Amino acid sequence: MAMVCLSDFEAYAKKYLPKIAWDYFAAGADDCNTRDENILAYKRILFRPRMLRNVSMMDIGTKILGSEISFPVGIAPTGFHQLAWPDGEKSTARAAKAMNTCYIASTYSTCTLEEISAAAPGGLRWFQLYIHRNRTASQQLVQRAEALGFQALVLTADLPYTGKRRDDIRNGFRLPPHMKLKNLERDFEVCKMSLLDPSITWNDIYWLQSLTHLPIIIKGILTKEDAELAVRHGVQGIIVSNHGGRQLDEGPATIDALVEVVDAVQGRVEVYLDGGIRKGSDVLKALALGAKCVFIGRPALWGLAYKGEEGLQDVLRILQDEFRLSMALAG
Amino acid sequence: MAMVCLSDFEAYAKKYLPKIAWDYFAAGADDCNTRDENILAYKRILFRPRMLRNVSMMDIGTKILGSEISFPVGIAPTGFHQLAWPDGEKSTARAAKAMNTCYIASTYSTCTLEEISAAAPGGLRWFQLYIHRNRTASQQLVQRAEALGFQALVLTADLPYTGKRRDDIRNGFRLPPHMKLKNLERDFEVCKMSLLDPSITWNDIYWLQSLTHLPIIIKGILTKEDAELAVRHGVQGIIVSNHGGRQLDEGPATIDALVEVVDAVQGRVEVYLDGGIRKGSDVLKALALGAKCVFIGRPALWGLAYKGEEGLQDVLRILQDEFRLSMALAG
Amino acid sequence: MAMVCLSDFEAYAKKYLPKIAWDYFAAGADDCNTRDENILAYKRILFRPRMLRNVSMMDIGTKILGSEISFPVGIAPTGFHQLAWPDGEKSTARAAKAMNTCYIASTYSTCTLEEISAAAPGGLRWFQLYIHRNRTASQQLVQRAEALGFQALVLTADLPYTGKRRDDIRNGFRLPPHMKLKNLERDFEVCKMSLLDPSITWNDIYWLQSLTHLPIIIKGILTKEDAELAVRHGVQGIIVSNHGGRQLDEGPATIDALVEVVDAVQGRVEVYLDGGIRKGSDVLKALALGAKCVFIGRPALWGLAYKGEEGLQDVLRILQDEFRLSMALAG
Amino acid sequence: MAMVCLSDFEAYAKKYLPKIAWDYFAAGADDCNTRDENILAYKRILFRPRMLRNVSMMDIGTKILGSEISFPVGIAPTGFHQLAWPDGEKSTARAAKAMNTCYIASTYSTCTLEEISAAAPGGLRWFQLYIHRNRTASQQLVQRAEALGFQALVLTADLPYTGKRRDDIRNGFRLPPHMKLKNLERDFEVCKMSLLDPSITWNDIYWLQSLTHLPIIIKGILTKEDAELAVRHGVQGIIVSNHGGRQLDEGPATIDALVEVVDAVQGRVEVYLDGGIRKGSDVLKALALGAKCVFIGRPALWGLAYKGEEGLQDVLRILQDEFRLSMALAG
Repeated sequence: MAMVCLSDFEAYAKKYLPKIAWDYFAAGADDCNTRDENILAYKRILFRPRMLRNVSMMDIGTKILGSEISFPVGIAPTGFHQLAWPDGEKSTARAAKAMNTCYIASTYSTCTLEEISAAAPGGLRWFQLYIHRNRTASQQLVQRAEALGFQALVLTADLPYTGKRRDDIRNGFRLPPHMKLKNLERDFEVCKMSLLDPSITWNDIYWLQSLTHLPIIIKGILTKEDAELAVRHGVQGIIVSNHGGRQLDEGPATIDALVEVVDAVQGRVEVYLDGGIRKGSDVLKALALGAKCVFIGRPALWGLAYKGEEGLQDVLRILQDEFRLSMALAG
Repeated sequence: MAMVCLSDFEAYAKKYLPKIAWDYFAAGADDCNTRDENILAYKRILFRPRMLRNVSMMDIGTKILGSEISFPVGIAPTGFHQLAWPDGEKSTARAAKAMNTCYIASTYSTCTLEEISAAAPGGLRWFQLYIHRNRTASQQLVQRAEALGFQALVLTADLPYTGKRRDDIRNGFRLPPHMKLKNLERDFEVCKMSLLDPSITWNDIYWLQSLTHLPIIIKGILTKEDAELAVRHGVQGIIVSNHGGRQLDEGPATIDALVEVVDAVQGRVEVYLDGGIRKGSDVLKALALGAKCVFIGRPALWGLAYKGEEGLQDVLRILQDEFRLSMALAG
Repeated sequence: MAMVCLSDFEAYAKKYLPKIAWDYFAAGADDCNTRDENILAYKRILFRPRMLRNVSMMDIGTKILGSEISFPVGIAPTGFHQLAWPDGEKSTARAAKAMNTCYIASTYSTCTLEEISAAAPGGLRWFQLYIHRNRTASQQLVQRAEALGFQALVLTADLPYTGKRRDDIRNGFRLPPHMKLKNLERDFEVCKMSLLDPSITWNDIYWLQSLTHLPIIIKGILTKEDAELAVRHGVQGIIVSNHGGRQLDEGPATIDALVEVVDAVQGRVEVYLDGGIRKGSDVLKALALGAKCVFIGRPALWGLAYKGEEGLQDVLRILQDEFRLSMALAG
Repeated sequence: MAMVCLSDFEAYAKKYLPKIAWDYFAAGADDCNTRDENILAYKRILFRPRMLRNVSMMDIGTKILGSEISFPVGIAPTGFHQLAWPDGEKSTARAAKAMNTCYIASTYSTCTLEEISAAAPGGLRWFQLYIHRNRTASQQLVQRAEALGFQALVLTADLPYTGKRRDDIRNGFRLPPHMKLKNLERDFEVCKMSLLDPSITWNDIYWLQSLTHLPIIIKGILTKEDAELAVRHGVQGIIVSNHGGRQLDEGPATIDALVEVVDAVQGRVEVYLDGGIRKGSDVLKALALGAKCVFIGRPALWGLAYKGEEGLQDVLRILQDEFRLSMALAG
């Protein structure tokens, strides 16, 4: 089977992953309308292609928060990579480094931050954070990440509670006994139910800033009002995200929300996006609408499911080739 | 089979109810466009989710006409609950009371008002009324309801004649011999053909007011013009409703009509809505657009069909959980 | 099989008519987009239903060109009724008379005008006319119709050439040997290819007026410009029609074109409509948008195919009942 | 099987061509959205049909760059006609001449320009050109075409690189060993990868003008900005084209882009269109929106696949008949 586009990896993962893992990765909240809209919204945005421009040399590298990456696609934070591939997040880290891009490791990793760091020394990595009821636990995670060379903290803002994902409930989703939320040394169910703090507010950003010198990026912003608040609270970046449509169903597609966020931010901080990226032309559209970089979630997992770090590199390489070609053809 | 969302109850009811009963509950007028639009219209309304608000404590209780209910979802008037569950409306009354919400008992009940009252003493109940050609019959029903502690009258305004429901005609729908319109001591066919008075007008509201001290709520309003008339005629509440799409096909979805009704009413009376509520987020949308409370029709019947009062409680509990989660995730 | 709505008659006709006849009646031009849009366009038009109006007595009769009909639905001109029922147009005439409505007999009838007249003496009938290259033939038809008591001439304006109906070409559609275009004493193929005059213009209306005292109605108008021309040339009525989507594909649906025609005409002549009427509510929408009456084409043929004049009466009676109910429910 | 409309030829070609050839001709870039939109966009454009105009005599001939053609449909440049029919481009040339229309021969022909010329002496032909890294090769092609009587050069502007056509990659598309890019005396893969020059800019038009006296037409323009540039650089014509949706996916449909190009050009040069023409009414719409002539790509290949030059003539004849009929019916 030729792996020609990201859908091929999706088909592979659907076929070969255990149903409970596939369902977990694929899940969206409620009717999955937002999950699906994330993808459909791109198709409503049309290029105005320009011709006869010299496209023989194109520079597709960029910088995010001052770090160079080879092209504007990074790895979004997603949980439980061992469900996709035995080496889990270690493979993800290796692939991201090999492709010279940024990997945002999730709090819900099945490898420790230390294992991730050791797997690909020197790679550009950010650390995704939830704020827990037990603030000391969060503080320790932040300090571990900083000590290990993670270069930014990504605070997830859209998960005061976990969204309702019907298939996970039907399946009674839980991690297999040999997998753990290793950074928390906990079982997933415990974390989901009791660790996250739904009372956090914008002021907790100040608390977070007091713990670390790392730049803080806020993930899950969908409105201009929240974008303005984020900038005022001193974050260094915003990821426009609806958590892959897994939290509140029937909010906006991220590519649709991007425009108002970029407009509100007026260049004061960098704006990124995740959700629905399936083709190189999607990347180009997001950049044309003001994103500095995009992140892929599910496609990275499909790549892992296909062949571990090699598979994820394949996914990134395809996106990179498609992105370069789209740029050339759009002029 | 896990009952995770209201669609699961729908699937169960479709599978296990006699076809003639399922068809009767599911029926819409003509091509069923309005019935289906009631649901689809919600999907076109998108949230603008806000982040980092303290959502650890949320109060989802409300008051309707001064009575407290545990969350803003009541039971809409629907007929013939014995078609769904042997105890019929008695089970409905018990479930509503257990969940601390309001149950609007239909004139077309298969239990008497007295049986309904006795089944769940002290529950919050309103009584739905048609005006009959024989006004004395209507008067007696009003007085029975008032005496039994029903706390409001809900006058159905959109059924001067019964809508054309093709499947009911094909099935030759009628009640099984052991079921009766007990409050009317009549057979359904007789009622449908000859009891309802198609000549009623706004002035009949004055007549109704002269019979009772109960507040009067008018059900079936879809336009600002009629909303204005309702307020001027002294009703205490309006239910925006198209009778579940069972009367005039190709009128507006209720969530679409809600906006103009709320706008016309300007807070002078309470505005409620029924039609198409299938998820907690639908409830939140209706409230965000100005409804004080919503009512569920078919989903209540699916709950009854599943497990009687327990099943209906399951349905209400799911809606309650989803509503609370939607509020938290929307900020 | 219960015949509950017009779709039931359609299903019957599709099942029991010879394929070549079904295809001929069902045919639309090219991709059949306009044929299908005629129906879909109604679904995009929503009622604003009003409540609590006295709808116990409703007068659904109307007058067209001064003649009373029992409700505002007549029979549009369609060809070859013997393909649907052995008695052909004689049955159509009888059904129309029994229902006290207007029947527009087609030039392409398989019964003579004399047979049609004799079948239902005293019925309200108009005669549909094409202008032939041989003007004498047209003149004779006009004079026969006038002498037989037809009360108006309906000039078809949208068939300078026959539209391209793919299935008819594939089927090699032609009349069975025992059927004839009896009024022309010709074979259909001859007529189609050579009799019609594609050079006719608005001035030919003056010529037609010079032949007859009958009022002239022009059929096939879809724009305000042509509506204005029609009024200026002294016609007494306009039928907004796209020939059931059988002529130019991808013109407007008739219900969409109606608005601009009514607006242009400003009440100077009566405006009618055909195309896509499948429910009583469609009739009500057309009247609400300014039509004085509508005409049904294919549904009349389905009624004939079901049971001849009885079947057509069934179709008309269903439409009448649905129309009355829609009026009541829309207030 | 009756060949009634272009879809019949498509169905035939899909059934009888080798899958690899069908896929190559059918391919669109990425998700094929633009390829499909090219067709769907026509259905959103509605006629305003006018009646009672003398349509007995209609002149459907036109002139392009001063040359008369029998109707405004020519043959767009497409590659590898021998994949569809053994005689390849020779058959195409013969059919175009027989129908008295224009054939744009592709650089990627499987016959030489000399063979094409000899096959149909005196036919109206233009030559489609890519600019190669090796400018001498391009220059020689231009001079050969000019010497052979080709009457214009069509410079393809939208292929600095080849679009990503997934099926071709999956199939490992390449020409059978007995076919060659005869004008280049090369294998297709070599050409695709290395011959085309992605650095070309508008200034290369001046270079091209310096080589030839032939008029230059630029193909692949989709925006008013590029249309303005084209006029300023002295081209004689513009073909609005998205390469049949084979290059950049999710750009505009050509019929949608036509309007802004025509508006920008203001009649200074002739504007043509290709993409999505499947019916005579599509041709009429393009002309109504300002195109001087349209070109067909895939339908020409289907015609060849059906019966070589006879099949292509059938396709053209059907389009001609449909175009004439549409004109008559639209008034």
